[in-house]
Amino acid sequence: MRGKAISWNGDYLLVLDQTKLPLSEEYLALRDTEDYVKAIRLMKVRGAPLIGIVAGYAVAQAGLNSAFSDLQDFEAKVRKAIARISATRPTAVNLYKALERMQRVLDDNILRTPREIANLLVEQAKAIHKEEIEATEKISRLGATLIPPGSEVVTICNTGELATAGLGTALGVIRQAFRQNKIKRVWVLETRPYLQGRLTAWELAKDKIPFRVLVDGAVGALFRKVKISASIVGADRIAKNGDFANKIGTYQLAVLSEKHQADFIVCAPTTTFDPNTKSGDQIKIEERDGDEVRKFSRSFVLPKNYPVWNPAFDVTPAELVSYYVSDEGIKLGRRKLKDDS
Amino acid sequence: MRGKAISWNGDYLLVLDQTKLPLSEEYLALRDTEDYVKAIRLMKVRGAPLIGIVAGYAVAQAGLNSAFSDLQDFEAKVRKAIARISATRPTAVNLYKALERMQRVLDDNILRTPREIANLLVEQAKAIHKEEIEATEKISRLGATLIPPGSEVVTICNTGELATAGLGTALGVIRQAFRQNKIKRVWVLETRPYLQGRLTAWELAKDKIPFRVLVDGAVGALFRKVKISASIVGADRIAKNGDFANKIGTYQLAVLSEKHQADFIVCAPTTTFDPNTKSGDQIKIEERDGDEVRKFSRSFVLPKNYPVWNPAFDVTPAELVSYYVSDEGIKLGRRKLKDDS
Repeated sequence: MRGKAISWNGDYLLVLDQTKLPLSEEYLALRDTEDYVKAIRLMKVRGAPLIGIVAGYAVAQAGLNSAFSDLQDFEAKVRKAIARISATRPTAVNLYKALERMQRVLDDNILRTPREIANLLVEQAKAIHKEEIEATEKISRLGATLIPPGSEVVTICNTGELATAGLGTALGVIRQAFRQNKIKRVWVLETRPYLQGRLTAWELAKDKIPFRVLVDGAVGALFRKVKISASIVGADRIAKNGDFANKIGTYQLAVLSEKHQADFIVCAPTTTFDPNTKSGDQIKIEERDGDEVRKFSRSFVLPKNYPVWNPAFDVTPAELVSYYVSDEGIKLGRRKLKDDS
Repeated sequence: MRGKAISWNGDYLLVLDQTKLPLSEEYLALRDTEDYVKAIRLMKVRGAPLIGIVAGYAVAQAGLNSAFSDLQDFEAKVRKAIARISATRPTAVNLYKALERMQRVLDDNILRTPREIANLLVEQAKAIHKEEIEATEKISRLGATLIPPGSEVVTICNTGELATAGLGTALGVIRQAFRQNKIKRVWVLETRPYLQGRLTAWELAKDKIPFRVLVDGAVGALFRKVKISASIVGADRIAKNGDFANKIGTYQLAVLSEKHQADFIVCAPTTTFDPNTKSGDQIKIEERDGDEVRKFSRSFVLPKNYPVWNPAFDVTPAELVSYYVSDEGIKLGRRKLKDDS
């Protein structure tokens, strides 16, 4: 199980602590709702699909932990777990979709015993987990068909095994294209404040895919220096009109990709598509604690009283997208439709 | 002298260690050429105009330290200091211009005694220092006329007292516009890898000018969220055709400013204009040690063997510039000329 983002051992969830990577590989056991809440809030686990999977296990865990309570108590505890997990991080829709599925298991089986329902909750969490892994495999295969041989590509944040439990979304596409000898080099955006680029670098290093890490401010200079074929990114929520939320820095990457004629490819499982959100301006953007900017690791670089703006995500309008790749297929984005018309 | 970037006390140069700000204010005494080389290379002092001033004092220091040698020895030592300082950082032209002025003092006075020449070198270094301070005052006054009342502005890196020994270039314009009640808020780009945004935040906090710090990846989202009047930046070298080098991240800020109809204002003393460089592609861009990216503050975030690209500067093409503000006046940039035509 070494190097796996998460694994369910029947009793609890073991997660790789992503705040410690790549310098050390440490595992945490999540055994009750508060463990799960903390792991998601503190970004020990992160990435929209992975958050969804972990949310499923969190509810299953609450069920297992109350399997010997009476039904009323059991139901209250599971519902409370759903409410607690639902309040952890607002932007990724996968979290809510996973919780809805878990809720439905509870609602549909309320005549069974707690033990039986708990088992069904575990089965449902495992199903979500399995489906997300399969979705990344489809995304990877489909997305790779868009990458020309000899490509230099840019990616932001982390969208690999650590974000999805599977091959990855954007990083899955890169992996698959590399296997097909189409990737010359991957340019990895550091992705302040949380530096998820270090997670992507860790995954690429393990797979021996050539990469270079750069600061977020250097991506414009990169486009001027190197012919980039495509920027390949994940998503946390894709609105009905094609606008989407993703890690802060994605919007400017999309603007630069258009200016320098690089394709801009958004890769996400169908669970990330949210037909209930009409457009990007309806997506709630999480603003996180300013200390993420004021410090890194244990050292402060700014005093506590300096004001900081720390949005975790931004919204990229649909007109900057060349392609959407999901497990259901490739959809042309408005930028591609415009270019082709 | 508290809070001053540098001060010459007659015997040596006292510099505020910019690597320690804003969490602590520590001073370093530079007493010989190697002290100066180290201070510039390790960015204890930085900012194109300030590097020029410090380079002047470095040569004066070498002269003073050899004032009791014979003329041949004196001349060799001063020339060696010029060569050593000249090899510290390649991008800012101010460094070379200051060294040329110091060299000329030596060449023009070679019939005098070492003691006399040393005194003339000190006078020349002081003159460079004084002229740079005066230039920032003119730039500040001129630039402020371009800022409309109620402005929200963005700036990158540090271009204030810490970069110029005077009011500042871009930050001087912001200071002056604030005094005229035109500035509502300053958005300060963190400016990885070296985080010079912390220096700008420190200067703004001292002057009680409202500001917020954001990561470099958030500037695109900022332009979508807030109506920005202008991006105001410094420069390290401005080529004859108007292309210019500045801190990494400036190019993408220029692209976003154009997309969101914010003015893009470049502020620099005449010493930063380099008629011998025809265009931006002739500017030598310093690439610094990858550990600046691998580390955050004092802690490593990436292993030593992960490859990193760490350009300290980028080049912004002239067509993205609205105005150039120097101590000699305001010049319309190509973007403004295009908009107005």
